[in-house]
Amino acid sequence: MLRFAVAPSGFKECLAADGVAAAIRTGIRRVVPGAIVDTIPLIDGGEGSARLLARSTGGELVPTTVTGPVGEPVQAHYALLDEHTAFVEMAAAAGLSLVPPGQRDPGATTSRGVGELISAALDADVEKIIVGCGDSGICDGGAGALRALGVRVLDVDGAEIGEGGAELLRARHLDVSGLDPRTSKVDIVVAVNPENVLCGPNGVARRYGPQKGASPEQVEQLAAAMQIWADLLRKHSGVRYAELSGSGASGGLGAGLAGVLGAKLESRFDVFLESADLDRWLEKADLVITAEGAIDASTALGKIPTEVARRAKRHSRPVIALCGTIGPGADISYDHGIDAITGILTGPVPLEDAINSAPELIADATARTLRMLLLGRTLRAA
Amino acid sequence: MLRFAVAPSGFKECLAADGVAAAIRTGIRRVVPGAIVDTIPLIDGGEGSARLLARSTGGELVPTTVTGPVGEPVQAHYALLDEHTAFVEMAAAAGLSLVPPGQRDPGATTSRGVGELISAALDADVEKIIVGCGDSGICDGGAGALRALGVRVLDVDGAEIGEGGAELLRARHLDVSGLDPRTSKVDIVVAVNPENVLCGPNGVARRYGPQKGASPEQVEQLAAAMQIWADLLRKHSGVRYAELSGSGASGGLGAGLAGVLGAKLESRFDVFLESADLDRWLEKADLVITAEGAIDASTALGKIPTEVARRAKRHSRPVIALCGTIGPGADISYDHGIDAITGILTGPVPLEDAINSAPELIADATARTLRMLLLGRTLRAA
Repeated sequence: MLRFAVAPSGFKECLAADGVAAAIRTGIRRVVPGAIVDTIPLIDGGEGSARLLARSTGGELVPTTVTGPVGEPVQAHYALLDEHTAFVEMAAAAGLSLVPPGQRDPGATTSRGVGELISAALDADVEKIIVGCGDSGICDGGAGALRALGVRVLDVDGAEIGEGGAELLRARHLDVSGLDPRTSKVDIVVAVNPENVLCGPNGVARRYGPQKGASPEQVEQLAAAMQIWADLLRKHSGVRYAELSGSGASGGLGAGLAGVLGAKLESRFDVFLESADLDRWLEKADLVITAEGAIDASTALGKIPTEVARRAKRHSRPVIALCGTIGPGADISYDHGIDAITGILTGPVPLEDAINSAPELIADATARTLRMLLLGRTLRAA
Repeated sequence: MLRFAVAPSGFKECLAADGVAAAIRTGIRRVVPGAIVDTIPLIDGGEGSARLLARSTGGELVPTTVTGPVGEPVQAHYALLDEHTAFVEMAAAAGLSLVPPGQRDPGATTSRGVGELISAALDADVEKIIVGCGDSGICDGGAGALRALGVRVLDVDGAEIGEGGAELLRARHLDVSGLDPRTSKVDIVVAVNPENVLCGPNGVARRYGPQKGASPEQVEQLAAAMQIWADLLRKHSGVRYAELSGSGASGGLGAGLAGVLGAKLESRFDVFLESADLDRWLEKADLVITAEGAIDASTALGKIPTEVARRAKRHSRPVIALCGTIGPGADISYDHGIDAITGILTGPVPLEDAINSAPELIADATARTLRMLLLGRTLRAA
């Protein structure tokens, strides 16, 4: 009996990982009716992660109104995974999709709502808070979040600066005397993409500023602001965050929470893939199927499919990746443990139609792919 | 060493069969550099067939100006395959794509240009003329073609009727006294889809009239006209063409050429696949790859991929089909010898973009598919 480990990411703005996994299972069963299919839907901590984590742990999504990235209140939430552990999805409070396209200016947007979510989680008396990064619409180094928790960021005259990353150009002093004392009694883990750093040529302002709406001039201004912020954090904590792995996560939120709250920066895959017990399922599988909305050159840079493949290869398991779109550079994935790639589209359709019928497209593509794989078994050796 | 038989159809309005075959070969070689790849580009006799046949036989395309389907002159051609054999593609003189969308009325369009192409081929002193059907824009039972060769179609008063299928409602008598005598000295073979018949519920008027632009009323009128035409042909030849296999090919051209010129109606695949020596290549192959622009429910009704698959299965060869679009009912192909299907699209792109990059898309999809197949060999038995 063939055994499959189905470990997909969600398809962004389309279908969550558990929906993707279920569709793949449907497709497998159509071709191999008796197959054993273990589904391990995966998250990266970004948009939609809280909802999926709450579902998959049997936890609870707690609705919380917070200050959104442009200062307006937004309906956000955090997840109570069990009575001791909360998961705060930063994108729920300060995600790029919460910034109206006309107001996309990462020099002005704030992470304040993330601090408010942490505060709400503290109200629930948890012992551990996991902060998921990704899909952020801000670049304020986490200053907004810290201020929501009682920290004051002061200028040369000792006056509080305003919200947003650009204001950090004027930041000269941190006053933590008013910091919520409960923050020191919980473990705070920030689940980061370790590729992201706060400063330098690959720093968060330069790498993500443009897609968050910054002009080239604003990017340079923000890069300077992040350097000033890194210096302040260093003075406060003794740690050089400027080029520390993960410090640039979510517009520098990683650095801010680590430098002032003592939060631990952990690789998002160590956090989420371990907790999903991924390796145990990979080891049992004859074939691993992962998936993501798009497979392209960036997939090799710490995205879910290549992370799954890397772990599957420890057990020498074959890995295929299913995706909505096969983009330029997808072949690079072959160097990272993915053995074969397949797309789900059946014709030249508008994106919206493809999104609406994603579960059927995924199931159908899985079935076609399994037929191809099983046919391969009948080929004689080359 | 793996050996591949690559036997695709062309992708309509996109890429001819030899271009498709070359792209598939490129994709194979990318994954299995030393593979033996036999390419057998296939035609069905429809649009583009003359050009490809001339190329693949080392023959010559002879430009010929003829009367187009709406009466205007069109630049057509026939192919001289060798000094004894001509190939006349009916679509080159009376294809649907030669009928401007605003003038699509199969009651009015004429096959006259097909007769003019036959006449031009006779001028070249050939011994055999193969007429390829498919993609026609007419429904005149071949009356126009016959008239171009000297036949007169008369009404009850002995006056010649006009051009177009609807006029056949008035046809009562055939006068063949003026028929070009050279037509009796050559072999004329009409390569037909044997599924197509002249009359009845699945007759050519009802099955193809709508897509050629006929209203429901016009369809019924044309169906009646085809019945009158069948009766005239029967009176002339003694053969009941009404429901004879292949008589409905190309708006009834099959019946007309058979009934008056004594042309033989042969299954298009017996004509073209035999001449391509397909079976010999299939027998040698470890894997057969066929292709068509679209794979859907109609593929099982006498299209190239299922015909290739049917023949491959005589030799128990695995068959995969590559296509631009996977349409509703594509899975029916699995019952006709196709083992697995794959699409070439990589993202939600407009049709035009996909057409422009078809060779790369086909090569890339072939490479991805081969990786999948070869990976399948590593899977343990179910």
